[in-house]
Amino acid sequence: MQTAEIADRIAWAVDGLEVEIPTWGFVNTGTRFRVFPQAGVPRDVTEKLEDAGAVARYTGVAKRVAIHIPWDRTDDWGALRATAAGHGLAIGAVNSNTFQDEAYRLGSLCSPFPASRRMAVEHIVECCAIVAATGSDVLKVWLADGTNYPGQDDLRDRRRRLVETLTEVYAALPPGARLVLEYKLFEPSFYATDVADWGQALSVVRRLGERASVCVDIGHHAPSVNIEQIVASLLAEGRLGAFDLNDKQYGDDDLIVGSIDPYRLFRICHEMVGALRDDEDPAAQRCARETVWMLDQCHNLEPKLPAIIRSVMNLQEAVAKALLVDRDALLAAQRAGDILGGNAILADAYATDVRPALAELRTARGLPASPFRAYLASGEEERRATARVGGNAASW
Amino acid sequence: MQTAEIADRIAWAVDGLEVEIPTWGFVNTGTRFRVFPQAGVPRDVTEKLEDAGAVARYTGVAKRVAIHIPWDRTDDWGALRATAAGHGLAIGAVNSNTFQDEAYRLGSLCSPFPASRRMAVEHIVECCAIVAATGSDVLKVWLADGTNYPGQDDLRDRRRRLVETLTEVYAALPPGARLVLEYKLFEPSFYATDVADWGQALSVVRRLGERASVCVDIGHHAPSVNIEQIVASLLAEGRLGAFDLNDKQYGDDDLIVGSIDPYRLFRICHEMVGALRDDEDPAAQRCARETVWMLDQCHNLEPKLPAIIRSVMNLQEAVAKALLVDRDALLAAQRAGDILGGNAILADAYATDVRPALAELRTARGLPASPFRAYLASGEEERRATARVGGNAASW
Amino acid sequence: MQTAEIADRIAWAVDGLEVEIPTWGFVNTGTRFRVFPQAGVPRDVTEKLEDAGAVARYTGVAKRVAIHIPWDRTDDWGALRATAAGHGLAIGAVNSNTFQDEAYRLGSLCSPFPASRRMAVEHIVECCAIVAATGSDVLKVWLADGTNYPGQDDLRDRRRRLVETLTEVYAALPPGARLVLEYKLFEPSFYATDVADWGQALSVVRRLGERASVCVDIGHHAPSVNIEQIVASLLAEGRLGAFDLNDKQYGDDDLIVGSIDPYRLFRICHEMVGALRDDEDPAAQRCARETVWMLDQCHNLEPKLPAIIRSVMNLQEAVAKALLVDRDALLAAQRAGDILGGNAILADAYATDVRPALAELRTARGLPASPFRAYLASGEEERRATARVGGNAASW
Amino acid sequence: MQTAEIADRIAWAVDGLEVEIPTWGFVNTGTRFRVFPQAGVPRDVTEKLEDAGAVARYTGVAKRVAIHIPWDRTDDWGALRATAAGHGLAIGAVNSNTFQDEAYRLGSLCSPFPASRRMAVEHIVECCAIVAATGSDVLKVWLADGTNYPGQDDLRDRRRRLVETLTEVYAALPPGARLVLEYKLFEPSFYATDVADWGQALSVVRRLGERASVCVDIGHHAPSVNIEQIVASLLAEGRLGAFDLNDKQYGDDDLIVGSIDPYRLFRICHEMVGALRDDEDPAAQRCARETVWMLDQCHNLEPKLPAIIRSVMNLQEAVAKALLVDRDALLAAQRAGDILGGNAILADAYATDVRPALAELRTARGLPASPFRAYLASGEEERRATARVGGNAASW
Repeated sequence: MQTAEIADRIAWAVDGLEVEIPTWGFVNTGTRFRVFPQAGVPRDVTEKLEDAGAVARYTGVAKRVAIHIPWDRTDDWGALRATAAGHGLAIGAVNSNTFQDEAYRLGSLCSPFPASRRMAVEHIVECCAIVAATGSDVLKVWLADGTNYPGQDDLRDRRRRLVETLTEVYAALPPGARLVLEYKLFEPSFYATDVADWGQALSVVRRLGERASVCVDIGHHAPSVNIEQIVASLLAEGRLGAFDLNDKQYGDDDLIVGSIDPYRLFRICHEMVGALRDDEDPAAQRCARETVWMLDQCHNLEPKLPAIIRSVMNLQEAVAKALLVDRDALLAAQRAGDILGGNAILADAYATDVRPALAELRTARGLPASPFRAYLASGEEERRATARVGGNAASW
Repeated sequence: MQTAEIADRIAWAVDGLEVEIPTWGFVNTGTRFRVFPQAGVPRDVTEKLEDAGAVARYTGVAKRVAIHIPWDRTDDWGALRATAAGHGLAIGAVNSNTFQDEAYRLGSLCSPFPASRRMAVEHIVECCAIVAATGSDVLKVWLADGTNYPGQDDLRDRRRRLVETLTEVYAALPPGARLVLEYKLFEPSFYATDVADWGQALSVVRRLGERASVCVDIGHHAPSVNIEQIVASLLAEGRLGAFDLNDKQYGDDDLIVGSIDPYRLFRICHEMVGALRDDEDPAAQRCARETVWMLDQCHNLEPKLPAIIRSVMNLQEAVAKALLVDRDALLAAQRAGDILGGNAILADAYATDVRPALAELRTARGLPASPFRAYLASGEEERRATARVGGNAASW
Repeated sequence: MQTAEIADRIAWAVDGLEVEIPTWGFVNTGTRFRVFPQAGVPRDVTEKLEDAGAVARYTGVAKRVAIHIPWDRTDDWGALRATAAGHGLAIGAVNSNTFQDEAYRLGSLCSPFPASRRMAVEHIVECCAIVAATGSDVLKVWLADGTNYPGQDDLRDRRRRLVETLTEVYAALPPGARLVLEYKLFEPSFYATDVADWGQALSVVRRLGERASVCVDIGHHAPSVNIEQIVASLLAEGRLGAFDLNDKQYGDDDLIVGSIDPYRLFRICHEMVGALRDDEDPAAQRCARETVWMLDQCHNLEPKLPAIIRSVMNLQEAVAKALLVDRDALLAAQRAGDILGGNAILADAYATDVRPALAELRTARGLPASPFRAYLASGEEERRATARVGGNAASW
Repeated sequence: MQTAEIADRIAWAVDGLEVEIPTWGFVNTGTRFRVFPQAGVPRDVTEKLEDAGAVARYTGVAKRVAIHIPWDRTDDWGALRATAAGHGLAIGAVNSNTFQDEAYRLGSLCSPFPASRRMAVEHIVECCAIVAATGSDVLKVWLADGTNYPGQDDLRDRRRRLVETLTEVYAALPPGARLVLEYKLFEPSFYATDVADWGQALSVVRRLGERASVCVDIGHHAPSVNIEQIVASLLAEGRLGAFDLNDKQYGDDDLIVGSIDPYRLFRICHEMVGALRDDEDPAAQRCARETVWMLDQCHNLEPKLPAIIRSVMNLQEAVAKALLVDRDALLAAQRAGDILGGNAILADAYATDVRPALAELRTARGLPASPFRAYLASGEEERRATARVGGNAASW
């Protein structure tokens, strides 16, 4: 295939795909052993938006920014929204935080303590208001809730509390907004996490209502689990809501998306593209259209902005390759039971080098051919480091 | 605690617990590398029932026998039922088999080939009739369906076929009978198993109706997964249907239940006992009462009957320890947020040696104090080996 | 980069790489649940060599064939060697089999029974003679030895027996030949496999002598393990001996190499190419040169010859991409601590589409541009199926 | 068995076992998401020793205390040793820390930067001096070294640097002291940890000399790995040096030892007791005698002193059960190939309730029957919280 033909088929990766960048992707992060600080890290939400603006400028497709409460709390949400708009950004998901207050030691929505549950509900209800105030349409809830020891709490009781409190939260959703519930196998809880897998998340959101769905974070699964199949199943159920994109070899490693297993990322994108094009499954199609593609990574050692820009490009390449799959031929092979044929069609799309076509598409839209290289060559990184001296660098 | 007091509290493990033994537990099994044959293996279903009868006689609690179609097919189901009854056995779950015919090479209910799906539906519908004919009330469906390579088939299409065909099967369930769907992470499929986890199983059975539920096989999970939490969640959803009990360190190892991680088994039993006693959650309680406790193990190297008898004892010990948990104290500790206290109550029940009390309970009921030792000392094993010479030993 | 330049840099993947095909790759295989037979499967070693010859003819790089004793036993090894040579093949590793005889129920070299150990030693010593007789220079030993239950045997005793018996085997190695010991996490043993990981294999071969090394089978690791790092460490120790190439998502899935995680395969190849070019580490370089690249896969459902040819191509693509890595730039980035830079160099080589250059290289050497498509179009598959009717298809 | 007879056989768990408590077990810890502070946490090494002294007083077997440099640095090591002695404590292993300085961003002993390696070597050489100054005989080295991305650094180069720098460290070991190297699968490195498994650790210490051995931390393995077999193999190689005891379900969860899988802990102890009694394997026996049994846990949520005291008791119970194993009967069953018999002997020892006998043994030695309950009832916990108000609570 010639570059022009490829470009034609993958244009959605530049024109249609919307990537969401979280404000907390720009701040200092690390492990429990050490947070290695970086130069130029933003000190407040204004500087975080500035950084998100840079990512938007270079990539052209990352124009949504997710915020985290209370990390990004302000007393003027309209102003924050305007600042974002000034950088060409819309506010994406509003993320609640119920894991950093002393009250949440034993959990938040699932805590055995009614006061902790109350506090958590009120916090997330406030986030619902922030959804409305910022023009967002997504409330994202990740819970660190769980237990560290057998017997620490009653597993069914915790689940009951979860359904009760989430029901209350759901009732506070602004009109048109959605609630997305994220699951995670472990960490910070080490025995039983209350929303540990997609089965748990799906069965809980189903009790809430039509506007509740599930967030898939690539790093939140048990070893060996087939993630693209979970994506397919959530699409089939009409309950996929968002991605937290990153990559991993072990636990919730939060590495650059596509840096460890790019073929897995491609296969996930293949399910998404399949649903987007599937007119016969409107529920899946609607889901796929509404799904938030958010990066959720921790650049503990590598410089953050270049890493994020590179991540967006990795995602675009995976999406582009998925767009290249010859779906008619694939369907024919599958219907014929031609295992090697079906596999080859997928593998061939993946083996194609889509970088030249992506570069062309970007150039034609006034974007740098390689946002990564352009950013590194721009001097912005150095200017940011020089400008942001003093103050308290943001972190978790 | 004195033995008598313990006995009083754990009596249900001898009087209430009903263990189901599968006919295929007595036959020659192995791995893809080798099936090591054993002496005295049954050659037909009559001899399998004889073996199950022996397990029932020695243990007193294993009086249900699961059958597998076509392995146990007969043209007179009434006679089979009567033979079973002669051994003091009731027919338990009827298990379908849609993985050993050439037609199922690419799957059964999920196959891309309509003829294969049709054949599978008809087979399982026939199993529904066998449920009725044998006085059973459970149809158990495990599917080997899945794909070995990305692209081999469409994941959402396969799921759609699954729901469609299962709906047809469900409609054929005899009145009063239940359908139990089993999930499994992998093997014999190595890329994507169609019913790979409890999330998949639960979301599928929910589409069928109230009489469809989920079977938890201990060996069918990804590494690290917290199985007792899945049990708790399925109970909370009113959708736990059965256990396939065994133990494992790696994949679907099918070892003796409680032989690798007896504390995990205890924690599972703790969830079950909790639900049985939970008058405030009638759905969970009903589930717990109806749940089938079936052994599903492969005694590839060790002698089968002693291994099965030992397995029943292991299960009884785990249940007994769960019955010993001081639930009022546990609840109080949990409500108080006393992590170490709650954990200690569980750990203390587990640390108790329940074998003397179980021996007393058995003796009082005319059973051998140790069914395992009594069986080994009985000479039955040797007589069985001598009697069953020639013919074709049963296997999968 | 232009195709011609790429071709120039990756030529070794066509001219230097030697792939070994095992005779047992052509026979019927399956899981413990079912072996689905295929048409045209060889019925004896002669037909297996014929099939290996076809793979050699189409790919041009797979001209070594590994044999398995007793599956390929003959009374005239010279004739077998000549038959192979007639197909353009050399005999590669001679693989012992100590897992299919009744005597090996509790193990072979590690069995508690001296007679079983003796029998196993004698069998492997015979394999040493076959190494000499066939012009091979590699004895490969994989042991199914292990235990299924805690307490079944003494772990240190089994290890002691292993060292003792392997010492005896090692003494029988023909001059110039090497012994390669393979490890595997589990299956068919489900509690403790005697040679379970590279640590065990390395510490054991070290006791034997300089001509003993370790075989890395991609599917034989615990989940999450970094395989390329093991390869690097074995190279550093001068103890890498062979690869058993395949791919996997779960256990020892034995899928087509590169079909599940092609980037992992590339990273393994990157370690190999690095060692091949590392004049400063002669031990690693010698190792890398002598390492056997053998496919060890089970094509349970897909047709075998096309699958094997495709596998060889997958491997060539991974090697070619590794050859493309700009090692000077990589070293410079690494020395500078440039994380994203180093990663990008690797990722960029991997993202390159090497298929056109490989096609050119093949065509220039008189080979089909795509061996896979050429084979499928040749009609050989159908002729093979027609010719090989009747008799007993070979299997494990 | 009567309590007295049990007590007789398990006395070593009270009289012989020496447990080491790390000073960092008493400080505030948490996850990257949050450190929940506790009341009464020590503010300096003096208070840490006070806490260790309390554990020693209540348990009677935990009279060694491990220190961590620089966390416990003082300018008068003699005084620290004397303070410890005043609490009845000896200084155990001296633990180096090369992961919290900015210089170690890309590693310490394996860093690509010579200055970082130099700094790390000097730090650990200083730790050697501290070993001498404190009367310790063990230097323990855990390295956080590794990479987060493919291509970030050269895997063989890192290994080479490791061997070179460790060689330098080893040369600085005081006479009679040992170096123990710890491995860990992942965290804080997420792609390749330089000392990731026992194979890596063993092959590296072997290059150093006779006084270098390996530390097994229960939480540092890939999922499914059989840890007791690694212990057995390291004993067989004469290279087991220390345990970092804790428990885990997922990653390096650092939970209370025996709280998740007590049977695994028992099996590890069984290997240790086996080696201690194995007069025919002097290398293993010496190893087992010298092995340090250290707790390495993070009590993120539960109160620390009670958790540590409970941990010591859990370990004693596991050791006691291992001491109960009828080794002659076990050997006989194993030699006879009696799988169920061998397994039953182990399982029966484990099923025995050793708590009454341990209570008797403690009482006879002037210790509380239950150190856990006695400590909780003592009021010490409250006094500690009251006394230690203000100042900076210690943490990592």
